[in-house]
Amino acid sequence: MGVLANLPQPVLPEPVMTQNARPMPVRAKGEDALSTLVSLVADDLQACNRAIVARMDSEVALIPQLAAHLVAAGGKRIRPLLTLVCARMCGYQGDRHVNLAACVEFIHTATLLHDDVVDESLLRRGLASANAVFGNKASVLVGDFLFARAFQLMVADGSLKVLEILSRAAATIAEGEVLQLQTQNDLSTDESRYLDVIRGKTAALFAASCEVGAVVAERPSPEAQALAEYGTHIGMAFQLVDDALDYVADQTTLGKTVGDDFREGKITLPVLVAYAAGDEEARCFWRRCVEDSEQAEPDLDRAMQLIAGCDAIGVTLARAAEFAEAAKRALRVFPVSAYRESLEAVADYTVSRVR
Amino acid sequence: MGVLANLPQPVLPEPVMTQNARPMPVRAKGEDALSTLVSLVADDLQACNRAIVARMDSEVALIPQLAAHLVAAGGKRIRPLLTLVCARMCGYQGDRHVNLAACVEFIHTATLLHDDVVDESLLRRGLASANAVFGNKASVLVGDFLFARAFQLMVADGSLKVLEILSRAAATIAEGEVLQLQTQNDLSTDESRYLDVIRGKTAALFAASCEVGAVVAERPSPEAQALAEYGTHIGMAFQLVDDALDYVADQTTLGKTVGDDFREGKITLPVLVAYAAGDEEARCFWRRCVEDSEQAEPDLDRAMQLIAGCDAIGVTLARAAEFAEAAKRALRVFPVSAYRESLEAVADYTVSRVR
Repeated sequence: MGVLANLPQPVLPEPVMTQNARPMPVRAKGEDALSTLVSLVADDLQACNRAIVARMDSEVALIPQLAAHLVAAGGKRIRPLLTLVCARMCGYQGDRHVNLAACVEFIHTATLLHDDVVDESLLRRGLASANAVFGNKASVLVGDFLFARAFQLMVADGSLKVLEILSRAAATIAEGEVLQLQTQNDLSTDESRYLDVIRGKTAALFAASCEVGAVVAERPSPEAQALAEYGTHIGMAFQLVDDALDYVADQTTLGKTVGDDFREGKITLPVLVAYAAGDEEARCFWRRCVEDSEQAEPDLDRAMQLIAGCDAIGVTLARAAEFAEAAKRALRVFPVSAYRESLEAVADYTVSRVR
Repeated sequence: MGVLANLPQPVLPEPVMTQNARPMPVRAKGEDALSTLVSLVADDLQACNRAIVARMDSEVALIPQLAAHLVAAGGKRIRPLLTLVCARMCGYQGDRHVNLAACVEFIHTATLLHDDVVDESLLRRGLASANAVFGNKASVLVGDFLFARAFQLMVADGSLKVLEILSRAAATIAEGEVLQLQTQNDLSTDESRYLDVIRGKTAALFAASCEVGAVVAERPSPEAQALAEYGTHIGMAFQLVDDALDYVADQTTLGKTVGDDFREGKITLPVLVAYAAGDEEARCFWRRCVEDSEQAEPDLDRAMQLIAGCDAIGVTLARAAEFAEAAKRALRVFPVSAYRESLEAVADYTVSRVR
C-alpha cells in the first residue's frame, strides 16, 4: 500500500453546483487580500497543491476518489498560504515549507471530514459534503488516513519542533470540538467558554500554521511566538465572523446553508448576545429552539429578527475586529515588507468578508 | 487546555454487565500465555496503565469521562504488553518503552472508537460501546484526541524512528479499514484482498508495537525487522481467529455479539471459503444475505451451518496456525529467554483461543 501512482497536475475546477447550494461569489469583498497572498507565493502554492494531490494517493481506490472530491471542492487554502507566506517573511530560502503547508492542509481537511460527520452537514463550500456523497464511514476513515499521512510527512521533514507544534494543535482542535459538543444546546454557556471553543476548534490550527513558518526559517522564539499570536487572533476573528454570517440572511459568501448553527443548537456569540438581551418571551423562544431543539419553519426568521434587533451581529463583528487589530499588532516585531503587509490585509479581510 | 489534574491511581474494575452482554470468561483457554507476559513486565505494565490514565486527561470533562469508560472496559492490553516485552527481550534498561506502550494503546483505542462508529456496534469487550453510551459524535472526536495525544507523547519521547514506525502504521490501519469498507458486501473479493484488509487493519499495529521495542533498545535493523515480522504474523493469526469466532455459536470468549460480521456484510475468510464451496442454492443465500443485505432471523443459523458443513472454520484456523508458526520462526534471531518463550506462547495463544 501507499505506492504513489503517476499523478496529473492538480486542477482546481470551478465548483459544480449541487441542488440547494447557493452560487459561490466570483470575488467577495476583501478577497483581494487573499489574491495578494497567493501572488506573493504563487510557485510555492502550486508546489504545495502538487504535494497535496500526490500525498493523498493510495492503492486503496476510495481514498484518492474521496480526496479528488475534496480537491475539486477547492477551498481557499488559507492555512497553507499562511505557512508559506510566514516562512518567506522570515527569510526562509528552502522548500521544506511546501510539504509542511501540505501537512497543515491535511490536518485541516481531516478535521473538516470529521466535522461534517459530527454536524451531519450536507454541504461544504457550496458542494455536497464528502459524507453526503461517500457516507459517514468513508469520511471518518479517510479523515484518519489524512491525519496519519500528515504526520508521516512531518516525520519525513524531520523537525521535532514542527511535530510538537502540530501534534499539540491537533489535540487542541479535538478538545475544542469536544467542548463544542458539550456546550451544544446549553444556553448557560458563557462567552469565555464560547471563546475557548473557537480558540480550540479554529484558532489553534491558524496559530500552528503561522508558527511553523518561523520555525522552518529557524527564527528566534519571540518571532515564532509573534506568528503564533497573529494566527490565534485571525483564527478567532475568522470564526466569529463565520458565526455571525450564519444569521445574516442575504450573505452569499458562506457556501453553507444559513441557519446551520441554529438548527444544530450550536452556542455562538450572536445567540448568547441575543439571549442575554432578550425579554422573557424571547428567552422562552431561545430555550425551546436551542435547548429543547424544538424548531418549526418560521423559527429561523424569528431568530434572525431577534439577533438583528439587539445588534448581536454588530457586537460579534466588533469582537472580531478587536482580534483582527490584535493580530496586526503581533506582526510589529517584523520589519515592514510586502509579506507583512499582505498578512495585515488578511487580518482585515477576515472581518471585511461580511460588510 | 491540557493541564493535567491530580489523578487517582488507575483502577481496572471488574467489567459491569450491560443488557445483552454475555459474561466475560474468568480465564479463557490459553490465557496463561498472557498471564506470563504480564508477570514478566508487571511493573512496566502498571507504569503504562498510569501513563494511559494520566495522559487521557483533559480540562474538557467529556474526554476523561469517555476515557474512564474505556479504561473500565479493560481489554487485555496485548499491544502495549508486546512493546514492553519486546523492549526487555532486546535488553532495554530504561523507561521510555512505558510511554511508547501507552502511545500504542492510544492509537489502538482511537481506532476502536472510530471502528465502533463505522460498524455501528453496540458492544465492545462485552460492555456497551462508547458510541452507544456517549454517541457517535463524541466517539469520533475523542478518537481524534487520543490519536493526537499519542503523537504528542511520541514527540516528547523524541525518536523520529519511532514516529516513523507509528505514523506509517496509523496510515496503513486507515487504508486497511477503507479497503474493508470497499470490499464490504462484495463476494467477488478474493482471499489475497481479504488478507490485505487484515494486514492493514490489524497486523500493522501489532507489527509496529513489537518493532518499537527493538528501536527503543537501539538494536540493529535485522532484529527490529524480525520483531515487525513476528508482530505482523501474530496480528494476522489474531484477526483470522476473530473472524472465525464470529461464526462459532458456543464461544464465550469474544465479548461481542456472534454474527456481527454477517449482519454487516463483512467479507471474511469463513464466508469466502463457504461461498466458494457452496452449490448454487448456497451461493444464492450468500448473495442475498451478504451482497444484498437482505437478512431474516434464521439466516445466521443457516450461515453457521453452511460454514460448519464445509469446515470453513477449520480452514480459517489452519491459516491462522500457519501465521502463528511463522511468527515463532521470526523470533529465532533472538537467543532463548523467558521473554522469547513468552512471545512464542502468545503466538500459540492467538490460535488456541478458539479450541
